[in-house]
Amino acid sequence: MSENQRLAVLHGIRDIRIEERLVPDPGPRQVLVKVAAVGVCGSDVHYYEHGRIADFVVRKPLVLGHEASGTIVAVGEQVRALTVGQRVALEPGVPCGTCRECRLGRYNLCPDVQFFATPPVDGAFAEYVVIDEAFAHPIPASLSDEAAALVEPLSVAVWAAGKARIEPGTSVLVTGAGPIGLLCVQVARARAASRIVVTDVSDHRLAAAKRMGAHDVVNVRERPLSTRDIEANVLLECSGNQAAVESALRCMMPGGTVVLVGMGDVALSIDAFQAKELWVTGTFRYAHAYPASIALAGSGSVQLEGLVTGHFGLDEVTGALEAFRNDPTSLKAIVHPNSRAP
Amino acid sequence: MSENQRLAVLHGIRDIRIEERLVPDPGPRQVLVKVAAVGVCGSDVHYYEHGRIADFVVRKPLVLGHEASGTIVAVGEQVRALTVGQRVALEPGVPCGTCRECRLGRYNLCPDVQFFATPPVDGAFAEYVVIDEAFAHPIPASLSDEAAALVEPLSVAVWAAGKARIEPGTSVLVTGAGPIGLLCVQVARARAASRIVVTDVSDHRLAAAKRMGAHDVVNVRERPLSTRDIEANVLLECSGNQAAVESALRCMMPGGTVVLVGMGDVALSIDAFQAKELWVTGTFRYAHAYPASIALAGSGSVQLEGLVTGHFGLDEVTGALEAFRNDPTSLKAIVHPNSRAP
Amino acid sequence: MSENQRLAVLHGIRDIRIEERLVPDPGPRQVLVKVAAVGVCGSDVHYYEHGRIADFVVRKPLVLGHEASGTIVAVGEQVRALTVGQRVALEPGVPCGTCRECRLGRYNLCPDVQFFATPPVDGAFAEYVVIDEAFAHPIPASLSDEAAALVEPLSVAVWAAGKARIEPGTSVLVTGAGPIGLLCVQVARARAASRIVVTDVSDHRLAAAKRMGAHDVVNVRERPLSTRDIEANVLLECSGNQAAVESALRCMMPGGTVVLVGMGDVALSIDAFQAKELWVTGTFRYAHAYPASIALAGSGSVQLEGLVTGHFGLDEVTGALEAFRNDPTSLKAIVHPNSRAP
Amino acid sequence: MSENQRLAVLHGIRDIRIEERLVPDPGPRQVLVKVAAVGVCGSDVHYYEHGRIADFVVRKPLVLGHEASGTIVAVGEQVRALTVGQRVALEPGVPCGTCRECRLGRYNLCPDVQFFATPPVDGAFAEYVVIDEAFAHPIPASLSDEAAALVEPLSVAVWAAGKARIEPGTSVLVTGAGPIGLLCVQVARARAASRIVVTDVSDHRLAAAKRMGAHDVVNVRERPLSTRDIEANVLLECSGNQAAVESALRCMMPGGTVVLVGMGDVALSIDAFQAKELWVTGTFRYAHAYPASIALAGSGSVQLEGLVTGHFGLDEVTGALEAFRNDPTSLKAIVHPNSRAP
Repeated sequence: MSENQRLAVLHGIRDIRIEERLVPDPGPRQVLVKVAAVGVCGSDVHYYEHGRIADFVVRKPLVLGHEASGTIVAVGEQVRALTVGQRVALEPGVPCGTCRECRLGRYNLCPDVQFFATPPVDGAFAEYVVIDEAFAHPIPASLSDEAAALVEPLSVAVWAAGKARIEPGTSVLVTGAGPIGLLCVQVARARAASRIVVTDVSDHRLAAAKRMGAHDVVNVRERPLSTRDIEANVLLECSGNQAAVESALRCMMPGGTVVLVGMGDVALSIDAFQAKELWVTGTFRYAHAYPASIALAGSGSVQLEGLVTGHFGLDEVTGALEAFRNDPTSLKAIVHPNSRAP
Repeated sequence: MSENQRLAVLHGIRDIRIEERLVPDPGPRQVLVKVAAVGVCGSDVHYYEHGRIADFVVRKPLVLGHEASGTIVAVGEQVRALTVGQRVALEPGVPCGTCRECRLGRYNLCPDVQFFATPPVDGAFAEYVVIDEAFAHPIPASLSDEAAALVEPLSVAVWAAGKARIEPGTSVLVTGAGPIGLLCVQVARARAASRIVVTDVSDHRLAAAKRMGAHDVVNVRERPLSTRDIEANVLLECSGNQAAVESALRCMMPGGTVVLVGMGDVALSIDAFQAKELWVTGTFRYAHAYPASIALAGSGSVQLEGLVTGHFGLDEVTGALEAFRNDPTSLKAIVHPNSRAP
Repeated sequence: MSENQRLAVLHGIRDIRIEERLVPDPGPRQVLVKVAAVGVCGSDVHYYEHGRIADFVVRKPLVLGHEASGTIVAVGEQVRALTVGQRVALEPGVPCGTCRECRLGRYNLCPDVQFFATPPVDGAFAEYVVIDEAFAHPIPASLSDEAAALVEPLSVAVWAAGKARIEPGTSVLVTGAGPIGLLCVQVARARAASRIVVTDVSDHRLAAAKRMGAHDVVNVRERPLSTRDIEANVLLECSGNQAAVESALRCMMPGGTVVLVGMGDVALSIDAFQAKELWVTGTFRYAHAYPASIALAGSGSVQLEGLVTGHFGLDEVTGALEAFRNDPTSLKAIVHPNSRAP
Repeated sequence: MSENQRLAVLHGIRDIRIEERLVPDPGPRQVLVKVAAVGVCGSDVHYYEHGRIADFVVRKPLVLGHEASGTIVAVGEQVRALTVGQRVALEPGVPCGTCRECRLGRYNLCPDVQFFATPPVDGAFAEYVVIDEAFAHPIPASLSDEAAALVEPLSVAVWAAGKARIEPGTSVLVTGAGPIGLLCVQVARARAASRIVVTDVSDHRLAAAKRMGAHDVVNVRERPLSTRDIEANVLLECSGNQAAVESALRCMMPGGTVVLVGMGDVALSIDAFQAKELWVTGTFRYAHAYPASIALAGSGSVQLEGLVTGHFGLDEVTGALEAFRNDPTSLKAIVHPNSRAP
């Protein structure tokens, strides 16, 4: 294209600058996408505030943002399944395709995955991005740009609920009612879980949980969770909080499944696993989840716009990131890279 | 109780007579139920018309009816979990509890199961029945008597859909839109299947399938099913028809799951299994399905009343059975044993 | 029978006394077994030393011993499958058969299980015991009395390896080479695991592990375990030791399975679960494992006599229990209740 | 290399000619292998006799042979994991790596797989072949060239037994004692199946089955198989014969698994599936099986040389193919492409 685009680049802790760079050309099996909407994730905020997440360290300027949607504006020469003009949700991690994990179908565990906004791979707070064709998923007209961006966090919930095999008859406990917890509630509801109980310390978030399908909520700042609230077959842990995990495990039925979605400094005593023979696993992103997520959102089974609490232009990325901490009612901020002041 | 009750008893082919017998006393762990509603099933009709189903032969007078609901009117001395006055859906097969299959948790395969209306065990076209407490499932007030009776066929669909692990992203083909097929459609929808296509030869039934959640329907009397209609991950076969099965198998995706619910003189060529490595199984009744079925019906995720096309008193059982064949618009007749002329 | 038998009864911490009681009559579906051999388990030693295990407290005199074999000497009137004279291995936990867990086939999680030598249920350090017929498993002539007793701990390993789905191609790490760890090694070998590595701090035990089929062993007192030793698909944790678990988790492959068999004061950081999406579970005894265990031992795939390091008469139960602590080379002591001085 | 090699080329039905062609250069991620041994498979014979298998038609000259081993003599520039001089077993099907099936980890179902000796892809009755590095599996010194070639049919058995989840306690029926059936017996034995019964119509083959680990054999030409022979949890069907399948299904336990390995004109009545709720599937080649197969053969758990009944040079390929039909005692002929007269 040989044209310039504008991007929001993290240069250091709390230092984001708008820059201009060449719009990239798509490779033979890639597409070029004009970015419409990008959700702000806690991991973006973490890089912004700390310059690192665990072993992933921001060593050179980095573009954040990995929950993105847009419109295809150019396609590589070998692309067959996509065309210019299609609206797409971007799956932000492109695996190598040849390692042991990829061959086994677990591409989310590929050690060589290239994942948006994970150092040193740039993300989507940019006017344009390129991505492999297989990871640009066409979306129906029923999905707004914002909803299409939020297919990414929805996929986290779809993956977690799928690992837990939630189905009619399942009793589900969701600990933590942030955006991922709320999406877990919606996916559990879409899978026709018989009972869904949510815990959090914020009445505001618990009200959202109720709105999104929880049968009951417990503010654990006010009273402890007990087996009178729920005897759960499945725990979707979205708080990353030690106390929340411990009290949740006490409410698990024998043979139940625990999926640890929330990250945090949490340790599990093995007693809880053994006496009830629980199965416990964690989630690391997702695999094969986008088609289901798009179908759920496209049919209205899951409502994504309800999570959006703010809109920001590319010049306002700093504000979008700050909102995460400063506004207790904020759930999900959306950046519109091609709008300077929406 | 030492009182008499009235029952509809099959004495021979197309020969049902109303008789009086003593109301039974519940055993120590049984409950006595005043029957409110009983659905008529194809198997009842088959015994009525042929006096047998495969190796099950009616050798002495038999009470038909196994889709039943009612109210508990007496409990055995060791019953703890249930009380007089509770409304219940009756799970009609009580397994032995000690055989290999029971111990493995597959009680539907218990060779010594006592199943309502299966010779020589009497069924529920009667004013009162006794049943083990664990097989009388309390129902919420949101369920009507008719809906509670239809928890039985719903459990067939819940079991089939559960074996197929239908979930968001799954593409489901249902062949045959009789009552079981229609319930399979509803359960697939409740589990958030991404696409549901139904085939039948009756426009009337296909219209019902659409109403109950099918995304698309194909009248295979008019045109053959093709992969343009659906590439299915799951087939729920409810027709028992050779041609339907064959064309359905051609629309299966590799690695898909086929659940054979409909019974019939059908043979599967193994080619279809091998090249696509399909997993194929059948269903024999259900196990552990009632709680999920009651939850689905109680929450409105599945609509059972929509299947009901006729009401009959105990004296009209013959009419209820005849309606199955004579009325092409009939889906599910309900017998009300305690109403002589509803 | 109206005859007396002798039993070894725990009256308090380190206080075991030989007593006489009436030989019990078998119930209608029970058998009376003349006990031939009983293995000493760490849990017996724990009750002997501490008078309790977690919430299980010895409040009245208790007969220890739950790894037992013997010969049927009388059968209840309804017993059909067993006859006097048969040699049997005793499965020491008899579940209720009617609770939710029993009905689901997970009878090891039955809250009302009656388990030998778990307060207040007496065990098998006795000349005679009665047990439900379904829990007295006939054994082939190829199994010695001692081996038949050790079918119990073997079942722990069979259950653990089964949950881990060890098969050809699986790389297995076993942490802890006590009796259970050594049995896990043998079962992993029987299931044709491609690689089995064992860690412990005792060269004596590690030599036994090598003898029983480990491909490699690591004395973690001498050097830390590393991914050069093994990249494991499966961890069978039999040490109950925090450091062992932590180093083992670092050697797990993505998508692997961890089965926590050893009990102890261990806590798992959730990081390890999440980045690799491990599946972690614990074991609580076993279910449906005796037939497989008897087949493995009967065919020689697993060698049980190799674990036996001492024989004791009923009067020597105290010595058998003390050997556990006092003799570092002791693996498994066998009590012969019908021999006063073997 | 710019050198010539000799190949055995099928020009028409029963028309194989030795030709010379250039030795190919390996692509960047390929290796060039000097072929040591190639097993003759029934599918090679079928192409030789009929010029087609189902929809796969030999339209231009084709090199047969897909069970191959050899030594790497050159590597492509991007090959990292393999080196010249390594002995390898060749996995003959190279999938596309990017289709839906490949991404899901089911690469054996890849519609674009390039499979040796399947028109129009040439096979290994040649002095040299090239193959992708990921499909050339290094073998231990304990494996002979012949054994390494037979890792291919072993993988068929490993895949089938893995799908059936054979483990200690499993009772296995194998119908058909040809090379694949015999390998299934060995793999079932390696997985510690509790009981293995084999049926065939040839005493010679049944004797081999006994030698390779069957607990019992039945010559169904002499007497029908019955439940007194076996009540099976797993059927590995390797005969492709209607009568064998029907009698085998009558011996299945409820809830059992049927894996259809043998191809043939067989149709299954659905009754058998339904009443026992069997799970039935077929196998199409294998995926991820080579490492386990090499480990089983390398450790001696499976004995491959015992299958070899003849050795042939490249000029004798016709004789190797004819032996399949003409010699009733022939199990597996091996072609040594670099030996003119071995």
